[in-house]
Amino acid sequence: MNATRPVGVRRHNLGLVLSHLAVTGPSSRAQIAAAVGLTKAGVSSIAADLIARRLVAEPGRRTAGEAGRPGSVLVVDGAGCAGIGLEVNVDYLAACVVDLARRTRFHRIDAAVDPRSPKRTLTRLAHVARQARDAATAQGLTVGGVGVALPGLVDPGTGVLLHAPNLGWHDVHVAPLLADALDVDAARVELDNEANLAASAELWFGDGGAWGDYLHVSGEIGVGAGIVRDGALARGSHGFAGEVGHLSIDPRGPVCGCGARGCVERYCGQEAILRAAGVDARPTTSTGRPDGSLARLLAALEAGRVRPARAVGRAGEALGRGVAGAVNVLDVDTVVLGGIYSRLAPWLVGPFTDSLRRNTFAVRWARTRVEVSRLGPDAAVRGAAGLTVHRVLTDPASLSPLVAG
Amino acid sequence: MNATRPVGVRRHNLGLVLSHLAVTGPSSRAQIAAAVGLTKAGVSSIAADLIARRLVAEPGRRTAGEAGRPGSVLVVDGAGCAGIGLEVNVDYLAACVVDLARRTRFHRIDAAVDPRSPKRTLTRLAHVARQARDAATAQGLTVGGVGVALPGLVDPGTGVLLHAPNLGWHDVHVAPLLADALDVDAARVELDNEANLAASAELWFGDGGAWGDYLHVSGEIGVGAGIVRDGALARGSHGFAGEVGHLSIDPRGPVCGCGARGCVERYCGQEAILRAAGVDARPTTSTGRPDGSLARLLAALEAGRVRPARAVGRAGEALGRGVAGAVNVLDVDTVVLGGIYSRLAPWLVGPFTDSLRRNTFAVRWARTRVEVSRLGPDAAVRGAAGLTVHRVLTDPASLSPLVAG
Repeated sequence: MNATRPVGVRRHNLGLVLSHLAVTGPSSRAQIAAAVGLTKAGVSSIAADLIARRLVAEPGRRTAGEAGRPGSVLVVDGAGCAGIGLEVNVDYLAACVVDLARRTRFHRIDAAVDPRSPKRTLTRLAHVARQARDAATAQGLTVGGVGVALPGLVDPGTGVLLHAPNLGWHDVHVAPLLADALDVDAARVELDNEANLAASAELWFGDGGAWGDYLHVSGEIGVGAGIVRDGALARGSHGFAGEVGHLSIDPRGPVCGCGARGCVERYCGQEAILRAAGVDARPTTSTGRPDGSLARLLAALEAGRVRPARAVGRAGEALGRGVAGAVNVLDVDTVVLGGIYSRLAPWLVGPFTDSLRRNTFAVRWARTRVEVSRLGPDAAVRGAAGLTVHRVLTDPASLSPLVAG
Repeated sequence: MNATRPVGVRRHNLGLVLSHLAVTGPSSRAQIAAAVGLTKAGVSSIAADLIARRLVAEPGRRTAGEAGRPGSVLVVDGAGCAGIGLEVNVDYLAACVVDLARRTRFHRIDAAVDPRSPKRTLTRLAHVARQARDAATAQGLTVGGVGVALPGLVDPGTGVLLHAPNLGWHDVHVAPLLADALDVDAARVELDNEANLAASAELWFGDGGAWGDYLHVSGEIGVGAGIVRDGALARGSHGFAGEVGHLSIDPRGPVCGCGARGCVERYCGQEAILRAAGVDARPTTSTGRPDGSLARLLAALEAGRVRPARAVGRAGEALGRGVAGAVNVLDVDTVVLGGIYSRLAPWLVGPFTDSLRRNTFAVRWARTRVEVSRLGPDAAVRGAAGLTVHRVLTDPASLSPLVAG
């Protein structure tokens, strides 16, 4: 019993030093000690532990037996742990590998086989996941876990996708199915909503640190949002916060897959925009996603065609009204446009911002900033990989390799 | 410098013991020690301090010099500190006094002189505030502060009401004006939005502790809401969260005082309901508020008249759509209907709940509970008084009497 507290403190300090190193980059033991408030001897001991775990490297140190030069710097050892990120969306599957230094080591987009069959889609996803794992192993990375981004309501506890109206999936046991196909324990496969993971990815890999409290709106076939407060995801009471796509903006609007009328998604989702723009929504190539249809829309916009530009402008106006509702309720510093909206930004941001401001009650006293995501449509799958990376950076002792290295 | 930490700890422990006593009721020193994790000697010392400050009483103790019976109980001394609560609304002013035992010692509703004149209204409010202060003093209460509930955006730092569209007030220096009239320092007058204070009042004086995370919707002339998470108000980045009344539910709806179209308030505010019900919205008596017009509406509803019942039902349906938007974004355990909605509950709750459920995306997996406030339209003014009471219960050393006792 007496040992509990010191072990807990040491475990905490491992995370303190490693996550500090991840944020600041190469640092000497003395610099770390000054920054995190530990003694230099304490940091040396923690660093030795992190080096032994292969989570930290000391580039100035030549061989295993030799001590580093005085003042030599420590860096996060990217290869020490990697996360696999997976994403299921209506018109594509995606996989990536992100290492502990937050570099993307593998990235693949795959056309979904048949979203109407969860089993076939997840079998295909497992195939892509094995490719990601092989790519990680081939690069000498230790895989620490698998995260999955899903376009719907998720129960992280059981690994079940409860409801994804645009996929037409209900109560799909995603984590057990994938774990089976990958021959790992189901507890090693973490699920989350794609919009939540995209919002977290902005914190971990993007510009999220500069935005204060923010609402990150992801445009895909569906429209979702993640809320970040005080540097962490605000999930709500059941993990279902941020369903901006199902704010009703017109009681006489079209019926949504969720049963309500006039949901934001019916005006601002990818298919609604393509339809209004007169662009064929069916992909003509087998490369899947942003490819086919979105690429055609972007080409039409760049060619200066009127109907597509007007369609995107109208979507921006409608999105601004819906997001203003969220801002009136939440009061955030920044609204971030992500997913396809980041690609459509040149045509979308103006009408969106005008509409947001017109419909935000406190706009004169708290002008919400509008930012465009640099991660764009890749945010969700990177966030899925980031679940493992973020966990190990804050709690290095939690790492247990998914496959023997 | 060495003394800083112990003084801080003692100050913290004063609040720990006093707020524990406020929650649990009469307790012996030993019971308190066991519950809050201090030694019995520590509690005795803290209790002696609180008794000296007249914030705690020991009913079993006969005279000042005599020691209490062994195991005699301690109670919060209600008279030790009282808060004055004030409220400005479009159709009434209110004032109350709440003591440290959270009993209401004074309560008065006053017809607003002329809401179009901030100066005359605040002069009248100061008059009512002086009556409250005199009532407190006559009852032997030590007044610790003044709180003011306002129907608009408030800057608590400067004591300025920024924007109250239903009053037509902008940039009114409420705290300095009231402080002047009461001859106290402006820092002693705290402002907050009425919906925020009503939500807090449910925590401090109502059933808020049993609701988990909740959204408290206050119906008055305007419609506002306060969000409570983890037992505390979630104010948003600038203190403007919860503006449910300005969620737009119809892009072709009537123009709102805020400039947007189809705001919830245009369908569900008191005037909108009275108009739809065919009830004269002008008070015929000088007693102000819920009386006049709301009383006539309630009488018509109780008499079984069709048009008023239909009007309230439609308001409930519209409110359900707006609040569903907030629930989709926030994900809370409970929605609480307060203000006039608590009075209209028998006719409102059914249509409201149906509409809320129909428009809440995650309803199958996270059914939001609907509760009706017991505090009703008095919640905001009690919350305003509660600002002082709550502050002194958690930090007894912060008490400095507003008037010499």
